Amino acid sequence: MRFAPIPQSLPPTVPFTGPETLERRRGTPFIARLGANENGFGPSPLAIEAMASAASEAWKYGDPDNHELRQALSAHHGVPPESIVIGEGIDGLLGLLVRLMIAPGDAVVTSDGAYPTFNYHVAGFGGALTKVPYREDREDPDALLNAAAETGARLIYLANPDNPMGSWHPAEVIEDMIERLPGDALLVLDEAYAELAPAGTLGKIRADDPRVIHMRTFSKGYGLAGARIGYAIGHPTLIAGFERIRNHFGVNRIAQAGALAALADRKWLSHVQAQVAGARDRISRIAAENGLSALPSATNFVAIDCGGDGDFARKVLAGLDRAGIFARMPGVAPMDRCIRISCGPEAEMNAFSEALPVALAEANG
Amino acid sequence: MRFAPIPQSLPPTVPFTGPETLERRRGTPFIARLGANENGFGPSPLAIEAMASAASEAWKYGDPDNHELRQALSAHHGVPPESIVIGEGIDGLLGLLVRLMIAPGDAVVTSDGAYPTFNYHVAGFGGALTKVPYREDREDPDALLNAAAETGARLIYLANPDNPMGSWHPAEVIEDMIERLPGDALLVLDEAYAELAPAGTLGKIRADDPRVIHMRTFSKGYGLAGARIGYAIGHPTLIAGFERIRNHFGVNRIAQAGALAALADRKWLSHVQAQVAGARDRISRIAAENGLSALPSATNFVAIDCGGDGDFARKVLAGLDRAGIFARMPGVAPMDRCIRISCGPEAEMNAFSEALPVALAEANG
Repeated sequence: MRFAPIPQSLPPTVPFTGPETLERRRGTPFIARLGANENGFGPSPLAIEAMASAASEAWKYGDPDNHELRQALSAHHGVPPESIVIGEGIDGLLGLLVRLMIAPGDAVVTSDGAYPTFNYHVAGFGGALTKVPYREDREDPDALLNAAAETGARLIYLANPDNPMGSWHPAEVIEDMIERLPGDALLVLDEAYAELAPAGTLGKIRADDPRVIHMRTFSKGYGLAGARIGYAIGHPTLIAGFERIRNHFGVNRIAQAGALAALADRKWLSHVQAQVAGARDRISRIAAENGLSALPSATNFVAIDCGGDGDFARKVLAGLDRAGIFARMPGVAPMDRCIRISCGPEAEMNAFSEALPVALAEANG
Repeated sequence: MRFAPIPQSLPPTVPFTGPETLERRRGTPFIARLGANENGFGPSPLAIEAMASAASEAWKYGDPDNHELRQALSAHHGVPPESIVIGEGIDGLLGLLVRLMIAPGDAVVTSDGAYPTFNYHVAGFGGALTKVPYREDREDPDALLNAAAETGARLIYLANPDNPMGSWHPAEVIEDMIERLPGDALLVLDEAYAELAPAGTLGKIRADDPRVIHMRTFSKGYGLAGARIGYAIGHPTLIAGFERIRNHFGVNRIAQAGALAALADRKWLSHVQAQVAGARDRISRIAAENGLSALPSATNFVAIDCGGDGDFARKVLAGLDRAGIFARMPGVAPMDRCIRISCGPEAEMNAFSEALPVALAEANG
């Protein structure tokens, strides 16, 4: 069977193995699901109610214009609806953006160890990806800009706050970076963790700046990962480009209803923010109780430095897995000295607290 | 702003305008939603219950392997799970298939007047589309095969039953067509209306035949259009190709739960089949009462021959719109002598029955 040349050249690799698959391999469910930075505090009860109510309307296609949600986001962010496109999560929007901007051989720059799904999409459309190292556990704006200038990159990916390290740059660093973008490079600013970041991390949303596109999601702070709904904000001409290629009826009706209700429930978001902050502290304390240090985090997860190399951290992760804790870790040195633990409710944090010393003891020999 | 060459060349056209957009333009909601072949009899109550229950689990990503649903579909169709890929409706799967198989300039064949979203995807990946005419209101296998042989087509699209005419070919015609496929052409067999077709329309599912891929959906018979979930069945090597390019976490968790429950509820599907059959008869009677003839249909919609040309049918459609009936019509002559009315519950059928004579009188004078 002969695929088209680009797909034919792609490895049958998948960016992530889901926890359900891991559970089937293990033969038992995880007791704590802390590996995908899901929001275990859950979506707003009003969003759950809206989705449950929308379920009986599931015979209707969702509004392909996502009109109500775009209007609500427009009001929320103070940007015109023409600057907003809704998609099947940031994953789906990243795929569309790469398709829209990258012809085979076009240069793209990211950080080595940053979001694999972006790299997957770049490879999937034949882009030429350059990766620059992290610097002190953060994505390195200067290195990204230099690589972009050298390669003539059309896209530069940066997540702020960062995944998998939880690190962040203050808004001024990003704004300075935008001013220094070379050529017609577009900054893909992945702000998946925006709602969980400390004040001063997010700059002004640039809805009329052709040099940057903001990627946002309902998966993290709003707790709707399974609903698959996110959005991008950018210059209206760029946003209009998505209309040429997107699957217009692709965003499901129930997700639209859930996102709309979640966005409106600011009180629940505050509650989640407080819970996440508490869980971040708890994870840091658990690390310290085990002689490890947790990295500061602007997200709903914490990277814990296991104090050894990647092999050691992988052993710790394997021990956690045996104890029923689903977690993941950075894929690239030196960040792979860490394991990455998502914030979750108390029971999950307790389970992690019990499992970590055992996993460490096993990893130590 | 410079897009990649293929998107840059695309018109900012959208295959379909959604009814919500039309309602915003009209300023009032439709009283009957009969334009998108949605299933107004609704999904199984068990599917609604499953989705409502899954809503509170929406903080978890859906299983990217769609394991449970694939297992259930495997058992239902008697094909191996390796022959099944789940996607965001047939629309999403058609996009992935075109991307997987078609390089810029590659030939693709379809029927003039068949599903516009397929054409949208072919254009979106730079394919060279050849359209052949319908023959007696049906897609024409011989014309498709001849055009495919002449152009060296890699894909041939055929919907059985057909949309927008509701016509169909018996299974033997399709099986004969598969035997006569030229070169390495792949038959894209869109069976969106499979569950509503009369016995003898669907052939054996070919899960190990590299010459055909079956496209199925939960949008029509199962009433889950808004959940955005469909599947393709084909040769395991072809199906594995989707893993190289699909958005692995793209199918939402609530839809997976809904589809699983819908598939299991055979009693509800029988109920819907009976309701649809009744509504088909009702639409035909309404046509006859107005001196028009309805075409036979193997789907959940009926094409009504308005007895004039396309301009006349467009006038009738505009009259229905004024009366609050959302309907659509074929885009190409001579099929555009018809309007296309989806089957729906009694209240919607009554509304159509009241509106049609008025719309006809207006169109006539």
